[in-house]
Amino acid sequence: MSLIVQKYGGSSLSDADSIKRVARRIVDTRKAGNSVCVVVSAMGDTTDELLDLASEVSPAPPEREMDMLLTAGERMSMALVSMAIANLGDSARSFTGSQAGVITDDTHGKARIIDVTPGRIQGALDAGHIVIVAGFQGVSQGTKEITTLGRGGSDTTAVALAAALGADVCEIYTDVDGIFTADPRIVPTARKVDRISNEEMQEMAASGAKVLMLRCVEYARRFDLPIHVRSSFSQHQGTWVVPPSDSEGDQMEAPIIAGVAHDRSEAKITVVGVADSPGKAAQVFNAVAAAQINIDMIVQNVSAAQTGKTDISFTCPKDDAQRAVQTLQAAKPEIGFDSLQFDDQIGKLSLVGSGMRSHPGVSATLFQALADAGINIEMISTSEIRVSVVTRDDQLDEAVRAVHSAFGLDSTEGEAVVYGGTGR
Amino acid sequence: MSLIVQKYGGSSLSDADSIKRVARRIVDTRKAGNSVCVVVSAMGDTTDELLDLASEVSPAPPEREMDMLLTAGERMSMALVSMAIANLGDSARSFTGSQAGVITDDTHGKARIIDVTPGRIQGALDAGHIVIVAGFQGVSQGTKEITTLGRGGSDTTAVALAAALGADVCEIYTDVDGIFTADPRIVPTARKVDRISNEEMQEMAASGAKVLMLRCVEYARRFDLPIHVRSSFSQHQGTWVVPPSDSEGDQMEAPIIAGVAHDRSEAKITVVGVADSPGKAAQVFNAVAAAQINIDMIVQNVSAAQTGKTDISFTCPKDDAQRAVQTLQAAKPEIGFDSLQFDDQIGKLSLVGSGMRSHPGVSATLFQALADAGINIEMISTSEIRVSVVTRDDQLDEAVRAVHSAFGLDSTEGEAVVYGGTGR
Repeated sequence: MSLIVQKYGGSSLSDADSIKRVARRIVDTRKAGNSVCVVVSAMGDTTDELLDLASEVSPAPPEREMDMLLTAGERMSMALVSMAIANLGDSARSFTGSQAGVITDDTHGKARIIDVTPGRIQGALDAGHIVIVAGFQGVSQGTKEITTLGRGGSDTTAVALAAALGADVCEIYTDVDGIFTADPRIVPTARKVDRISNEEMQEMAASGAKVLMLRCVEYARRFDLPIHVRSSFSQHQGTWVVPPSDSEGDQMEAPIIAGVAHDRSEAKITVVGVADSPGKAAQVFNAVAAAQINIDMIVQNVSAAQTGKTDISFTCPKDDAQRAVQTLQAAKPEIGFDSLQFDDQIGKLSLVGSGMRSHPGVSATLFQALADAGINIEMISTSEIRVSVVTRDDQLDEAVRAVHSAFGLDSTEGEAVVYGGTGR
Repeated sequence: MSLIVQKYGGSSLSDADSIKRVARRIVDTRKAGNSVCVVVSAMGDTTDELLDLASEVSPAPPEREMDMLLTAGERMSMALVSMAIANLGDSARSFTGSQAGVITDDTHGKARIIDVTPGRIQGALDAGHIVIVAGFQGVSQGTKEITTLGRGGSDTTAVALAAALGADVCEIYTDVDGIFTADPRIVPTARKVDRISNEEMQEMAASGAKVLMLRCVEYARRFDLPIHVRSSFSQHQGTWVVPPSDSEGDQMEAPIIAGVAHDRSEAKITVVGVADSPGKAAQVFNAVAAAQINIDMIVQNVSAAQTGKTDISFTCPKDDAQRAVQTLQAAKPEIGFDSLQFDDQIGKLSLVGSGMRSHPGVSATLFQALADAGINIEMISTSEIRVSVVTRDDQLDEAVRAVHSAFGLDSTEGEAVVYGGTGR
């Protein structure tokens, strides 16, 4: 008997009918001879409605109370899913994050899971029940406060429970058929990927692919847990996210490229006219790090010999960019530079594939494809299985299509499936 | 510094504006130098909406999951009230029933409170916070399952917490100004009572008065806890429900009568032609008791000498009446009687007042008032501080007005205030 953890997002639980449909799918999985533990998000619009109510009573609600409020959403959906399962003649027990043993730190609104003690849900599974767990929530160690996990929290709950229970697979149900070689809204010829390694998925998620959140992929990779991303609206196989050996071992030649991700969430800041002397870059990035801002790409131009000065550019989340500028401006006397340039009209394209390790020339093909399309490259960064470039924002879509095509990823079937967000 | 426990019902928390109004009142109480612990019900229509959702996914939802679902309602209102308080510059912490230490038995849907361990909320009060607690809910001893307390549950939560915390008073906020000498919808000249003893209130609640539920009054009486029933829509003093010494000691002559309650929730069953021999009544009521049906009034007519047979009538909740008839029918061979009569067109009037202990003639005045109004009395029962009579349902309103007037309870101000339900 296999143990399967399933996660259903809010778009799969939008109303009573969809809850009944999800319940049918859960019961079918159980009837096929599996133990089933299900993680649910809040129903469709519930979270937005709760946020609206909160903003009506307070412009800046305390985070502790916001977590108390929002966790009511999963409480409702898990009880309703359990009822719908009971109505199909099977037996379900719902548990809050706290009851399920999801132990977090005490950072309200974006808590990290630090332990899972699934004794109660293991007991319910052993007793033959289907277990329904509230995603997105936990209880803080020590202080026993209710916390929420922030974006991607329900996926992370599912993967964390799957790891703690020793599940055979974690199925993430969403409103798309799986992981695609690119966002089908931009590349209509994008293909669904049948299998992808978790390290590739991690690079894709870190580079802007939105179907799975980075933290959930990281968690699954740490525990070698297979994830099956699939649609709750069809019975099709989706995409398996698996350890590298599983994704490559059974194929004579693994595909070089897994997909093309894109990201519009970053801005570029350039520190102009820094002295080209040892320790200056460290001063710049120490200042930014002290403000708790995550840097993505960094480029330092070659020094102009006449002046002894250089320019340092970096990208960071748009939401943090103004704060980064203020931080650097405050440190100007200490660091010493001419000026700061701020640019939020950029886009990032990332080509991801573990096959590029053994295939030289991937970067050259990428740059040639962009040159042929008349697209200028502003920054470049690489990892072992990824090449990323920054372009103008308004050229990014065209860049994604050009690269997708240049690496032979276009589907001959021309199927266009709309790509969705993750909800939580 | 006093410790005040306040309870706000759903009608006082119908939307964001009423939540802000309640928050203002709570903060004012705190600013007056009191420690404040607040118990809240679910917002206005939330419970009905959740019940609708449940009925859409299942015609007969499991009680455990129903409790899980419904408890989301108080979770939302307590978080929103806390946010509104924070927005006024004060500090509030919300706690679920489980977090507040409301320990119950494991009867889902109508659990009884068996212990209160208020360590966490005492700690929050000691730290200077206003504490907001979810009413109507608890956690079962041993099994740690989420339970709800059933009708009047939030009032009972408030009284139980007030007793456990050693509060000075429990204020029950509702949508009426207090306890009235009769239901103002029936008796427009009914007067608000300033003080009433808890034993009188207990008889009133048991006799159909709906502002306070019986179980809450019983709880307060057991712990000698004063309750102040008042409106959340005005600043008026409401009605103090206090131990008998407090309600009578400071007055030279306590009023004889506290009020007139009425009740349309009962039906009458008559067992016709029972043998007039020892043990027959015991057989009848043992059978009914075995079916877990609560009996209210009992009348046995004088035996007709010729036949050696008698009739036994009793009243019980209408909801249980059909079951009582079936139970007796099944026991007919064993008990031996001619037939069963069933009547759900009855009403009960109860006159309550601790003053009647020392004032003979109260019953005579009552019967005369009904006779003058042309109303027939079908059954009579009395306790030390109560006289109840059963009349035809369609004569009950007129009976209440006649008795209210005969005992001099009519207000000379003629103020008509609409009487509300309790919600939960």
